[in-house]
Amino acid sequence: GSGADNDLYINQAVVFIEDAIQYRSINHRVDSKSLWLYRWYYSRTCQWMLSLTITMILALAFVEEPSSLTATSDVRYRLPPWNPPCGLTESLELLCLLVFVADVAVKSYLIGWKEFWKNKWLLAYIVTLLVSLADCIVSLSFSCTESFRIRRILRPFFLLQNSSMMKKTLKSINRTLPEMASVLLLLAVHLSLFTMFAMLLFAPTKDNQQDKEWVVYFRSLPDSLTSLLVLLTAANNPDVMVPAYSKNRAYAIFFILFTVLGNLFLMNLLTAIIYNQFRGYLLKSVQSSLFRRRLGIRAAFEVLSSPREAPACAQQSCVSARALQQVLQKVVMDSRCKQTIMRSLKMCPCDQLSAAQFQKLFEELDKEAIKQHPPSPEYRSHFMQKLQFAFGHPYFGYLGNVVALANIISICVVLVMDADKQPSERDDFFLGAINCFFILCYLLEMLLKIIAMGLRRYLSYPSNRFDGLLTLILLILEIATFALYGFPHPGWRPEFLGLLSLWDMVRLGNMLIVFRFLRIIPNMKFMALVVTTLLDLVKNLRAFAGILVVVFYAFAITGIILFKGAVIPLGNTRMLSKRDLLLGSAALLSLQSSIQHVEWGEKNVLSRCPALLYLLSVHLICRWAKIYFIAWWLISSVIWVNLFVALLLENFIHKWDRRCHRASLSDIEYQRTVELMFRDVLEEPTEEELMEKLQQHPHLQLGR
Amino acid sequence: GSGADNDLYINQAVVFIEDAIQYRSINHRVDSKSLWLYRWYYSRTCQWMLSLTITMILALAFVEEPSSLTATSDVRYRLPPWNPPCGLTESLELLCLLVFVADVAVKSYLIGWKEFWKNKWLLAYIVTLLVSLADCIVSLSFSCTESFRIRRILRPFFLLQNSSMMKKTLKSINRTLPEMASVLLLLAVHLSLFTMFAMLLFAPTKDNQQDKEWVVYFRSLPDSLTSLLVLLTAANNPDVMVPAYSKNRAYAIFFILFTVLGNLFLMNLLTAIIYNQFRGYLLKSVQSSLFRRRLGIRAAFEVLSSPREAPACAQQSCVSARALQQVLQKVVMDSRCKQTIMRSLKMCPCDQLSAAQFQKLFEELDKEAIKQHPPSPEYRSHFMQKLQFAFGHPYFGYLGNVVALANIISICVVLVMDADKQPSERDDFFLGAINCFFILCYLLEMLLKIIAMGLRRYLSYPSNRFDGLLTLILLILEIATFALYGFPHPGWRPEFLGLLSLWDMVRLGNMLIVFRFLRIIPNMKFMALVVTTLLDLVKNLRAFAGILVVVFYAFAITGIILFKGAVIPLGNTRMLSKRDLLLGSAALLSLQSSIQHVEWGEKNVLSRCPALLYLLSVHLICRWAKIYFIAWWLISSVIWVNLFVALLLENFIHKWDRRCHRASLSDIEYQRTVELMFRDVLEEPTEEELMEKLQQHPHLQLGR
Repeated sequence: GSGADNDLYINQAVVFIEDAIQYRSINHRVDSKSLWLYRWYYSRTCQWMLSLTITMILALAFVEEPSSLTATSDVRYRLPPWNPPCGLTESLELLCLLVFVADVAVKSYLIGWKEFWKNKWLLAYIVTLLVSLADCIVSLSFSCTESFRIRRILRPFFLLQNSSMMKKTLKSINRTLPEMASVLLLLAVHLSLFTMFAMLLFAPTKDNQQDKEWVVYFRSLPDSLTSLLVLLTAANNPDVMVPAYSKNRAYAIFFILFTVLGNLFLMNLLTAIIYNQFRGYLLKSVQSSLFRRRLGIRAAFEVLSSPREAPACAQQSCVSARALQQVLQKVVMDSRCKQTIMRSLKMCPCDQLSAAQFQKLFEELDKEAIKQHPPSPEYRSHFMQKLQFAFGHPYFGYLGNVVALANIISICVVLVMDADKQPSERDDFFLGAINCFFILCYLLEMLLKIIAMGLRRYLSYPSNRFDGLLTLILLILEIATFALYGFPHPGWRPEFLGLLSLWDMVRLGNMLIVFRFLRIIPNMKFMALVVTTLLDLVKNLRAFAGILVVVFYAFAITGIILFKGAVIPLGNTRMLSKRDLLLGSAALLSLQSSIQHVEWGEKNVLSRCPALLYLLSVHLICRWAKIYFIAWWLISSVIWVNLFVALLLENFIHKWDRRCHRASLSDIEYQRTVELMFRDVLEEPTEEELMEKLQQHPHLQLGR
Repeated sequence: GSGADNDLYINQAVVFIEDAIQYRSINHRVDSKSLWLYRWYYSRTCQWMLSLTITMILALAFVEEPSSLTATSDVRYRLPPWNPPCGLTESLELLCLLVFVADVAVKSYLIGWKEFWKNKWLLAYIVTLLVSLADCIVSLSFSCTESFRIRRILRPFFLLQNSSMMKKTLKSINRTLPEMASVLLLLAVHLSLFTMFAMLLFAPTKDNQQDKEWVVYFRSLPDSLTSLLVLLTAANNPDVMVPAYSKNRAYAIFFILFTVLGNLFLMNLLTAIIYNQFRGYLLKSVQSSLFRRRLGIRAAFEVLSSPREAPACAQQSCVSARALQQVLQKVVMDSRCKQTIMRSLKMCPCDQLSAAQFQKLFEELDKEAIKQHPPSPEYRSHFMQKLQFAFGHPYFGYLGNVVALANIISICVVLVMDADKQPSERDDFFLGAINCFFILCYLLEMLLKIIAMGLRRYLSYPSNRFDGLLTLILLILEIATFALYGFPHPGWRPEFLGLLSLWDMVRLGNMLIVFRFLRIIPNMKFMALVVTTLLDLVKNLRAFAGILVVVFYAFAITGIILFKGAVIPLGNTRMLSKRDLLLGSAALLSLQSSIQHVEWGEKNVLSRCPALLYLLSVHLICRWAKIYFIAWWLISSVIWVNLFVALLLENFIHKWDRRCHRASLSDIEYQRTVELMFRDVLEEPTEEELMEKLQQHPHLQLGR
């Protein structure tokens, strides 16, 4: 009947508007049952469950058989890790996989069969699931004794496929690959030509046999290649040239030429290329999000305005305000936005809304709430008014910063004085007394500010919340200290009591005080700019970080498989577990190596990381280790770091330009969303583009 | 008289046009004598003499008292360096200084007194000269026994002041300093807060005394600061965290946080800031050069067109073609340009040139010669024509590349096979025979190409010149080998004869073959793009490189003064000269350290560079060394590398954009000059701007 039809249209509009709010694609089934399923699937609970499942399946690696999640990483001291019985992790994994099966089934159903076959991600998802399930069953049937578990390498795929942002980023990276490959090829040519040069230049001559000392780096082709590759990462920088250089200074020309060409030119060329490719990346992604939002709103308008609904306006399609109100009541969205839209809808004089009016109503979604701080209390007493003026003044805040700085300096002085003393000689009285005094100061500052501003206004500033919270924690810590150890007096060196020793408590207090000092940041213009850029960056980097996690995980698991045989007895007592090396310390070390291209490369790792030393000293796996580390260096360090630099440049330069243009406006009014950052340059999609896209919708047949 | 006046005007015009060609300022005296002096001063001989003097005074450091210009840098083997007698270097220096005195006198005279007092560079030049002269005389009067020679630190100033490009670049860098200082301040805050955290976190507790092992990096405030500063350069990357990490994995969070914030964010922020500041740098500098050129031409027009000269055209000022011809004959300029301008002048129908016509004539200066390769010879014989077609075809070039690649691979194979053998076991027959064969191939290729293209056309391609020259050298080397050692046969291991052993000659030949392989570069599009970008960059980097040399030199000399007492007996035989450490190896090592921020910092240098180890192990100078190296790291590595990256980004992105726009045009038509690169975006100065600038000329009174 018409009522059911009406309900369907309302539901469709609700879902389309929700799609618009979440920047989702609208290409899904639109019949009643599917809509219910769709809303259920994208409900917060359901998505949260899915995220939990993904987290759980990834976290399994930390408790599975070769696990090492102990407090210390030192194999000499640590306790044997807990080994779960066979079947426990496997059944957990099976559970997760079943959730994924449900997920893929719902997703496939919702987008429809036709679309399903076009969607490579969904197909890959299904293949991954099938392989994982088969592997899991094999594992269970062998009672967990087989060791090559392919499903572990596949796990990060579940993380990847669940995030549309990550998929988009991966596509962008993929587009950059051909040019990156060109530079890498250039790098390879550079490396191989210089390797041949080096081998010819540093070959042992027949005449003088005594110069073997200085050819150690260039004895054979793999040796030379490794030496120069490591030189490219600057890890063995002067070492490799010192023998040759000490024989004849002219040999240095070779190394300088190699380093300048390789490190300075080609490596930075990679940065330039990646930056060049990613220059428009942020803008493009924001633009496509905007398109999705406008499309969702337009689709909602179209379903509501089908001629059956409102025959009154035949010429131009329009939507009755009543229908929209019905829809709005059902939509799940930010309550502030909803209220604003409802209000403007009521204020609208006309009963029928045109497409433009409809879009305009929803523009509220693009705006960020303008924060209005509650007003200060108004005191009657003249004295209180004066007080309010004095302690509400910015100078009082600056005074607070000076006090915090004084505290920092006093801690610093005490630390320097105590550095030479034995722990047993130390007197905690001085530091205790100082901290006590300063914490009282902080408390006083907080109270005075609350009196001047009123509690609600005080709490509406993030800097005050940060400040007040830390002050309260410090106060509690101080009271606990006094309760346990009494008031400080000269020669105050009490015995250990309670959870923490006095010394630990004082240290904790000091750390909190140092942390509290960060409140100065918003007061310094340049610092505030930098910090907001960094916050923006962190937001934009989530997708990159996700991809990094995926790569990380895959590398760690691959490492375990590759270096299986490398369990070496150590100190005659315990075995060195592989997982420890590769998921634990290596992951950590690799993260750092990705930060500066230093800690990779067999030789360097050998001399630096004691754990990997044991691993790589096993000669059999040396070559595999080399290839593994080169791949790791290329992906995590060279490519990822350059991507990061490109994004930072993009973000920062955009911000900087804006700052120069709008120098007068708003110092601290942070604009956290990328959408707002690009507001000036975004293009609104035209009506034709929207309608064309709507016509292509696989499930929605528009009446006209 | 009018004739003398006329001559003066002609001479003025000549000088102004020469100024325009060389992009020089026209603000100098313009009377007859001054013009003669000006032309003499800017003549090639005179400028060359000045450059020679600057080179000589800078090179003095390599032969002065603590010199070490020996082949080996190893103090165990090297011969004592030649010590010039007292007075020799001093009198040479005095001579150079006198040249500079003459230079500054001429320069000051030419720009006039009024301008002189405004010119800070000239004033600084005079002060530097006075100090240097005084210091030199003191040195001579003490018979070279005093050791603190301030004039040595001042020497690089002479290099700096002689280059207008370097002065301009320095000004740009200077403008960036406030923002760089902000980031460095941020870095300092970051460092100090984390240092305090570290000291509190890793302080030895009273309760357990055994954990001293892992507090070695954070024992005292200077220790902690150094550890974290070195961590910022990633030099001690995992070492510093391994003790803490092996105690408790959670400590790694501290290090990761520090490295991510410091290394990934703040350091790259510096890149972003410098790039942002330098984004318009190239364009601006090219724009100002263009202005100088237009101004010089316009000034020449104005002096020629003064009403006395051509009363015929009273309304609009104009210049007679005859006068311009007279001027052109006197101007020193590229002969091709001169001919073109003369030709267009003759073809011009009018006898009187307007300002626009005058400017237009000289636009030839902005154009680069379009290279036209001479035509191939035309053969009558059908066979020769076919030959010409076959060997003039690009495929024949590709075949040559394939042959070169085959040669490279064969050398590679031999090297790999020989790597395991003792030098005495090696048989040179195989390599000798291969090389002989391939060199004949190359010779044949060259001859065939010359037949196909004709010698002149062959030589007109740079790649052919490169190719042919190397082929000839290889041929000579091969002939010399055969002459000395006979033809290769199995078991061919002749004794040492002549200048080089057979083995050395074969090695040299192989190196040349590897070098010859670079001919493939222009055949690969992306490589050609990269190589041309790099060549552009090298051109634009000259000013930066000059400033780097200045900084380098000043640092080396300062090091010598600071580390004076650090002469340590070594191996009971010889003294380690300071100069050796600091001008020789340290300069070299520092160059490398500037490439990747690795080799700085006391601890790291200690463990890496054996020479500096001896130096820094003297405890007394430890703190000075630390400050010295930190300063060096900041200037050479952080700032300079970032400047370089900024320039590379600028250059490359510009080039890349152009490639995309003009993909159809010219693959190999290199456009080396920056002027041409920016042609599309440059703005022509307006007539008003030019005339306003001309009115401000301090010495030229224009008639109207």
